[in-house]
Amino acid sequence: MREMVEVQKIAYQKQYENRVRLLIKCPDQPGIVAEVATFLYRCGANIVESSQYTSNPNGGMFFLRMEFELPNLQREFRQLDSNFNSIAEKFSMDYSFSYVSQLKKVAIFVSKETHCLLELLWEYQSGDLMMDIPLVISNHEEARGIVESLDIPFYYIPANKSIRTQVEQQQIKLLKEYKVDVIVLARYMQILTDEFVSQFPNQIINIHHSFLPAFIGARPYERAYARGVKIIGATSHYVTNELDEGPIIEQDIKRVDHRDTVERLKKIGSKIERSVLSRALKWHLEDRLIVDQNKTIRF
Amino acid sequence: MREMVEVQKIAYQKQYENRVRLLIKCPDQPGIVAEVATFLYRCGANIVESSQYTSNPNGGMFFLRMEFELPNLQREFRQLDSNFNSIAEKFSMDYSFSYVSQLKKVAIFVSKETHCLLELLWEYQSGDLMMDIPLVISNHEEARGIVESLDIPFYYIPANKSIRTQVEQQQIKLLKEYKVDVIVLARYMQILTDEFVSQFPNQIINIHHSFLPAFIGARPYERAYARGVKIIGATSHYVTNELDEGPIIEQDIKRVDHRDTVERLKKIGSKIERSVLSRALKWHLEDRLIVDQNKTIRF
Amino acid sequence: MREMVEVQKIAYQKQYENRVRLLIKCPDQPGIVAEVATFLYRCGANIVESSQYTSNPNGGMFFLRMEFELPNLQREFRQLDSNFNSIAEKFSMDYSFSYVSQLKKVAIFVSKETHCLLELLWEYQSGDLMMDIPLVISNHEEARGIVESLDIPFYYIPANKSIRTQVEQQQIKLLKEYKVDVIVLARYMQILTDEFVSQFPNQIINIHHSFLPAFIGARPYERAYARGVKIIGATSHYVTNELDEGPIIEQDIKRVDHRDTVERLKKIGSKIERSVLSRALKWHLEDRLIVDQNKTIRF
Amino acid sequence: MREMVEVQKIAYQKQYENRVRLLIKCPDQPGIVAEVATFLYRCGANIVESSQYTSNPNGGMFFLRMEFELPNLQREFRQLDSNFNSIAEKFSMDYSFSYVSQLKKVAIFVSKETHCLLELLWEYQSGDLMMDIPLVISNHEEARGIVESLDIPFYYIPANKSIRTQVEQQQIKLLKEYKVDVIVLARYMQILTDEFVSQFPNQIINIHHSFLPAFIGARPYERAYARGVKIIGATSHYVTNELDEGPIIEQDIKRVDHRDTVERLKKIGSKIERSVLSRALKWHLEDRLIVDQNKTIRF
Repeated sequence: MREMVEVQKIAYQKQYENRVRLLIKCPDQPGIVAEVATFLYRCGANIVESSQYTSNPNGGMFFLRMEFELPNLQREFRQLDSNFNSIAEKFSMDYSFSYVSQLKKVAIFVSKETHCLLELLWEYQSGDLMMDIPLVISNHEEARGIVESLDIPFYYIPANKSIRTQVEQQQIKLLKEYKVDVIVLARYMQILTDEFVSQFPNQIINIHHSFLPAFIGARPYERAYARGVKIIGATSHYVTNELDEGPIIEQDIKRVDHRDTVERLKKIGSKIERSVLSRALKWHLEDRLIVDQNKTIRF
Repeated sequence: MREMVEVQKIAYQKQYENRVRLLIKCPDQPGIVAEVATFLYRCGANIVESSQYTSNPNGGMFFLRMEFELPNLQREFRQLDSNFNSIAEKFSMDYSFSYVSQLKKVAIFVSKETHCLLELLWEYQSGDLMMDIPLVISNHEEARGIVESLDIPFYYIPANKSIRTQVEQQQIKLLKEYKVDVIVLARYMQILTDEFVSQFPNQIINIHHSFLPAFIGARPYERAYARGVKIIGATSHYVTNELDEGPIIEQDIKRVDHRDTVERLKKIGSKIERSVLSRALKWHLEDRLIVDQNKTIRF
Repeated sequence: MREMVEVQKIAYQKQYENRVRLLIKCPDQPGIVAEVATFLYRCGANIVESSQYTSNPNGGMFFLRMEFELPNLQREFRQLDSNFNSIAEKFSMDYSFSYVSQLKKVAIFVSKETHCLLELLWEYQSGDLMMDIPLVISNHEEARGIVESLDIPFYYIPANKSIRTQVEQQQIKLLKEYKVDVIVLARYMQILTDEFVSQFPNQIINIHHSFLPAFIGARPYERAYARGVKIIGATSHYVTNELDEGPIIEQDIKRVDHRDTVERLKKIGSKIERSVLSRALKWHLEDRLIVDQNKTIRF
Repeated sequence: MREMVEVQKIAYQKQYENRVRLLIKCPDQPGIVAEVATFLYRCGANIVESSQYTSNPNGGMFFLRMEFELPNLQREFRQLDSNFNSIAEKFSMDYSFSYVSQLKKVAIFVSKETHCLLELLWEYQSGDLMMDIPLVISNHEEARGIVESLDIPFYYIPANKSIRTQVEQQQIKLLKEYKVDVIVLARYMQILTDEFVSQFPNQIINIHHSFLPAFIGARPYERAYARGVKIIGATSHYVTNELDEGPIIEQDIKRVDHRDTVERLKKIGSKIERSVLSRALKWHLEDRLIVDQNKTIRF
């Protein structure tokens, strides 16, 4: 299995060896697209996908995602970034180039409930989520078997409120060691401290098991049941220092009715969680998300 | 137009002249269905639809909705109710018979925004909402034209916080005069007093322009926009004395994205509101709803 | 893993040791519900769920599903069936009692693509599909690993048009041997002969990878792509002797757009197939389906 | 009412007096975006929205939609088009500029069933469909009242197979006279001849009351009922000379079940038709659609 995954990755990296994505965020003004597109054209690039958004044509912010092919990327890419710098300065851009063949390194955190982890591993194996998973961290042992069966290192780090700081230091050490780019909280039921979160801005993706902002906090299915809602949902968002208040990436819902017990809501909800988290991660991996204050732009 | 609506109603009443619906709510115990079905059989009734729900097989509540044909209903219905009484007592039932040919009288309350009213009138004309609309009450004049064009009396009753009690007295007088069975708040933007609400238990249906319990209270679209949600919704519920906390009848949603302004959210949302309110009212008119504490059972 | 599944099953069987489901199909006439409910009451049963449908109140067919608790079921169930016989004859009923604690035996057929099989195994392990899986049959080796890891016997039976009859004889022998109740074609890409199909009426469940009746037959995603549809779907149905024409159990869809290649359609479609097939099987296992000519009634 | 619509239009035209949309279709090659964006920048334009799609990075077709603000558009627009010509030639472009303040002229064709017409008129009045409606043509009188109440000319032209040619000549004369840009078949139940269709390529939008390609042709709800589908749909498409085979613009669906009669399917379906047709027309009016062979690109 492990082997098949590697074969897929190599084929993908080969196929997209010359593919680059450029994300830009800056104050809007005329001429940005012209200048960027002309720059890329002169570099020899062919734009294959481009999306833009302007929060307000008069004095708003401008957001751009371009995906292009640059022949001989391996030779060119250092140049690319440094040459682009003068444009970036002219327009006061936040920007980043990312190279599709450099797979992002994703650490998955999980607790007892493994359905979200399983979905991510499934999509990983089927080639739908193109990433490396250098490690999985859990405060329980439930997930060890499945994780290790894929030759992914599994770290069991028991956690609770009283030892939070030590636990996080241990986790951060591992994340640095493995050079992790993204942290996915796949139903990790521990609260992260502000210190932890600030080290990974817009890099931690959580799945909350309710249709935010309804049922912020604990036991959302129990509360949805008590309220008698006719639809339940799940929300994937970037983690910030305010609980369940980070920029929303994706949400989805399913209908329920009076016959559904809390137990049924959890079953139904677990399917929403699986697909919502996996879509959110996929978009992040494909550099389709730009965070703008407390919102996400999705291209 | 008016005439066509009347023709439709008469055809419907003729078609269902022998049709009865029975709603039951009582503590669960063995034998209820047997006794009710046997009773109806002996009356000469043919059950055409039957739904039941037990909140808990051990000591929960039992809910039943039966729809049946009773030949010569006009002659029989007084008997029916009085004969059923002994069964009702035996099982401590809350119950009601309703006669399909007796259309429910629905008063619609509306303010400036008329999209929900228009949907209800549309469904009314197309024969999808079988009801009488003895009057429409509004604190604005916007809806007068369309309402009067259907020969429905339109009452303009200006309203604001300071004159709430007088306004409601005037409204209640009209509602009694017209023998109203149901009040639909089709985007009526005034808060009703507890006194008003208690006079019409489970008879007032509201549409709230958010996916409750998210965004309880005022300006939900503005708040949904500020939060950056990826899905907006609407909720229809029975009105109780707690704002936006009554039993939920129906909810629905639509996807939105970062390009959608508050103005767009309102447009998109108005289509959800239209269909959610009209479904909720339809179920109420068809006696498909039973309120159980703060929830609705929908059959 | 295997062990956990067994523990779940035993708990489930214990919990529902007295639970019975009764399915009835007969010409409609007054008094059926009364008689059945009275019979059950006299047996000491408590009805916990009941649904009925009449195709036409005047001379149509009547369909009923009842779920009830019968104390001491182990002692009573032989009686139940034989005592019910006189009612069944009186109303010319097709009927069946099924005992929830007797899990249905499901054989899964699969070819190269394993996503539907994986979903079923997942739901099986999570306790959402309560069944026994005595064997998996495949004309390819792809699924062997995952199947055997759950201690389920895996039979590799190569198949093609020219050896169809021998292959099916081999398969039927196994199905009899294992006393299989249901056959699930989880993307099994061989056509079954009429002889095979007639031996298992309303017992073979297929997943077709299109929104039937659109794209009957082979290569539906390629044809959906060529047609430029904006929505793709999947359909689960009982297998009859007419290709893709059997009674539909469940369908679902997802939106696609001009950017989606055939490859993407297959990925997106595979998620629809997974959930549609697993819902269809679940309803079958819960005795919620009655076939009426070329349609399914779902309770 | 008429007056309010005019006021809305004037406000919209004022708001977007400098807004232009550019649609491009040409063989893909590097440099297109750079050249177009630079051209627009030099004209003084500010791009506010831009979308592109390449059917295949190697030798496929390139599609672009740009929306931009050009100060003093009234003075500049002649220039714009003629100056752009050299770029268009260089890249062998099909292209068109459209000026948002020049509302498209839409003729609506309707027969007896008016629900789609009503939805379009509703959206027209609410300002959601920004267009002029110079006339409505019908082979029945049902819609006259509502159409004329909005001061829109209503032409009753009886039609049947035997007089098709004369009827269409009369219709075409009117369409030319009123300089119509788009024809919407809002449940117009007459087949158009090839001669008629060829005069309006990609300008005739139809709503078909099924989920194409299922149930091509007549009586789709009856056939959906007979087949026992669990989901019904509607499809809006451009009309070509092959019946129900034109490029699909939009589709949508709703769930149905065994209880739904043909009559119910029609009711449910009419709501899908309403919203699908109105979305399709909206995208056409906003120049979001490019036809590519038998498919639509939607930006």
